[in-house]
Amino acid sequence: MKKIFYLLFALLLTSFVNAQAQHHPSHGGAIHSKGFATMDKSGVLTAYEFERKTVGDNDVLIEILYSGICHSDIHQSRDEWGGSIFPMVPGHEIAGRVIEVGKNVTKFKVGDLAGVGCMVNSCGVCDRCKAGEEQYCENNKTVYTYNSRDFEGDPTLGGYSNNIVVTEKFALKIPQGADLARIAPLLCAGATTYSPLRFTHVGQGDKIAVAGFGGLGHLAVQYAVSFGAEVTVFDISEDKRTDAIRMGATKYVNVNNPEEWKGLENSFRVILSTIPAKFNVEQYVRMLKVDGEMVLIGMPAADQIPSVHTGALAGRRKIYGTLIAGIPETQEMLDYSIAHNIYPEIELLDADADAINRAYQNVIDGKVKFRYVIDMNTLK
Amino acid sequence: MKKIFYLLFALLLTSFVNAQAQHHPSHGGAIHSKGFATMDKSGVLTAYEFERKTVGDNDVLIEILYSGICHSDIHQSRDEWGGSIFPMVPGHEIAGRVIEVGKNVTKFKVGDLAGVGCMVNSCGVCDRCKAGEEQYCENNKTVYTYNSRDFEGDPTLGGYSNNIVVTEKFALKIPQGADLARIAPLLCAGATTYSPLRFTHVGQGDKIAVAGFGGLGHLAVQYAVSFGAEVTVFDISEDKRTDAIRMGATKYVNVNNPEEWKGLENSFRVILSTIPAKFNVEQYVRMLKVDGEMVLIGMPAADQIPSVHTGALAGRRKIYGTLIAGIPETQEMLDYSIAHNIYPEIELLDADADAINRAYQNVIDGKVKFRYVIDMNTLK
Repeated sequence: MKKIFYLLFALLLTSFVNAQAQHHPSHGGAIHSKGFATMDKSGVLTAYEFERKTVGDNDVLIEILYSGICHSDIHQSRDEWGGSIFPMVPGHEIAGRVIEVGKNVTKFKVGDLAGVGCMVNSCGVCDRCKAGEEQYCENNKTVYTYNSRDFEGDPTLGGYSNNIVVTEKFALKIPQGADLARIAPLLCAGATTYSPLRFTHVGQGDKIAVAGFGGLGHLAVQYAVSFGAEVTVFDISEDKRTDAIRMGATKYVNVNNPEEWKGLENSFRVILSTIPAKFNVEQYVRMLKVDGEMVLIGMPAADQIPSVHTGALAGRRKIYGTLIAGIPETQEMLDYSIAHNIYPEIELLDADADAINRAYQNVIDGKVKFRYVIDMNTLK
Repeated sequence: MKKIFYLLFALLLTSFVNAQAQHHPSHGGAIHSKGFATMDKSGVLTAYEFERKTVGDNDVLIEILYSGICHSDIHQSRDEWGGSIFPMVPGHEIAGRVIEVGKNVTKFKVGDLAGVGCMVNSCGVCDRCKAGEEQYCENNKTVYTYNSRDFEGDPTLGGYSNNIVVTEKFALKIPQGADLARIAPLLCAGATTYSPLRFTHVGQGDKIAVAGFGGLGHLAVQYAVSFGAEVTVFDISEDKRTDAIRMGATKYVNVNNPEEWKGLENSFRVILSTIPAKFNVEQYVRMLKVDGEMVLIGMPAADQIPSVHTGALAGRRKIYGTLIAGIPETQEMLDYSIAHNIYPEIELLDADADAINRAYQNVIDGKVKFRYVIDMNTLK
């Protein structure tokens, strides 16, 4: 009897200590983190351990369970946009569980599911920030999730790691029971495609096009179809034709087949380009109707960003770029995606440097169909 | 007494014949016209006589009193856009008096003042035509006032001549007593600048810029100021600084002075470019606020049309071109201009080939401040 009592006591104590550890792993100090970093612009990832800052009064500490691989991770790891900060822990498609909250936090409690996207802070006081478009902060104080500097000037480190500290305002709510692995890529790819489709008021009966049918494109198609639009997909690969039709596109154009381009002049009100490389922009602009809009959301390497001949823009055919989405719209996108069962098609990777490096190469070689997600549960 | 009677009779008869000739110079047949044409892409004008088609049931015959010289006349005379049709009688800024009307005409009567702008016909049945945007005719049947082909395939001949036949729908109403010489340039330059300022809803307190302060630019400034906007003008010439301020601009930037560009990033909601040559478009786009719009209305020679690096278009900074204005909006612009006393600053030319050729050279050399207008009353 005494033995059983001691055993129960020990179990309870262990459980209490574990709970303490789980809920307050910071013990009021710096947070130990481990994950993967690129040490230079070779872009090769290696295992990496580091400290994150204390959980402040308005912060949450999130245990990262899944982390998506975005093409922009590769661009930044290889310094293809310039100004990369090394060592770099990439990752801005983060889904996990809140394991500690600061004393002022009201949006989350320990145990809630949460996401983090491309941003972790901004000035908060300019018109754009107040309008919930923190990505366009007029004071240029947007702090990105990695490869950026926080307000103290220290580099931010991203989601290829086992935890992250973020002010609650920049953490997104995810309902219990959600499919976290498939939600992770929504935090960037979902926001980036949902926002311009809302901005251009794509809706019932609209004829639109999605150029580039990869990680971004396959989400764009699903959103646009769910909004009631008639969607034509353009991609270089014949492989993806059946995927596009399966996701609701009404037409697929293999851009390498000149026959398939015919008769498409003056066809689309909106063309969303996710193409992450140089391309013939005029060839697309010509397919816009009068007052049509071509929105560029693909972000190629700096030396691959295309130019457009302004003569093609007559007839109020507009071209512009949008950048991710603000926090309120990112939350709206998450809620919408879950309600309408819109998810990326993903391939899960072990949290292993070799696996991630191979995945990077596949993205570069165009061998990934849609999206890779790192299963951080497998981190050793 | 008998002599006086015969003299009076002769005078009356002459007057009657003249009146007949004036009101019905067509006598139901082709209209004899004289004016000036370029015979080839040398762009040199010479005196030219030709026949215009019969006045149809829906047509008006207009005696041309003033004809503006637009930079596009020069581009087309020199075949700088390609596809020019010679002999070419340029001119699409036409103001005059109706001297004959077809039997179905209701909008005009003989003696009314009338204007003709850049278009003389279109399909009339497509959505754009029905919306009064004939310049964007979806059936590509816009017939331009010159250097175009009418529905029978015959070349159209423009306003550097003593008369023109046009379907009443494409003739604009001008009130009696109006200053026809200053109204002529409004038919193209006024429409071209008024339309994008209305389209972008420029209004009270807006901060906008006008790039290029010539024939188009000086009208754009006057319209924008009258709409309540705060206008910054960009031009290469120091000479025009006082003109810009006099017309209501709050700031003038001499683009050759790097100091004057400073501090203008993220400043403007709208930038209207009238620049008729290649230029650094990104330098302007960078001055747009988030959601700002750069509208291109200058029409350079084909090999001078600029490209823009799409990386500059992030933050939903839009770029597009507009083309003149539809007929209803051109009428609105004329009525607005007269009501608000907005006119071009003009230099009158005799209707003489040498004078016009010299004027062309001055436009090419940037030596005309604003607008030349040919006084067709002086035609010999």
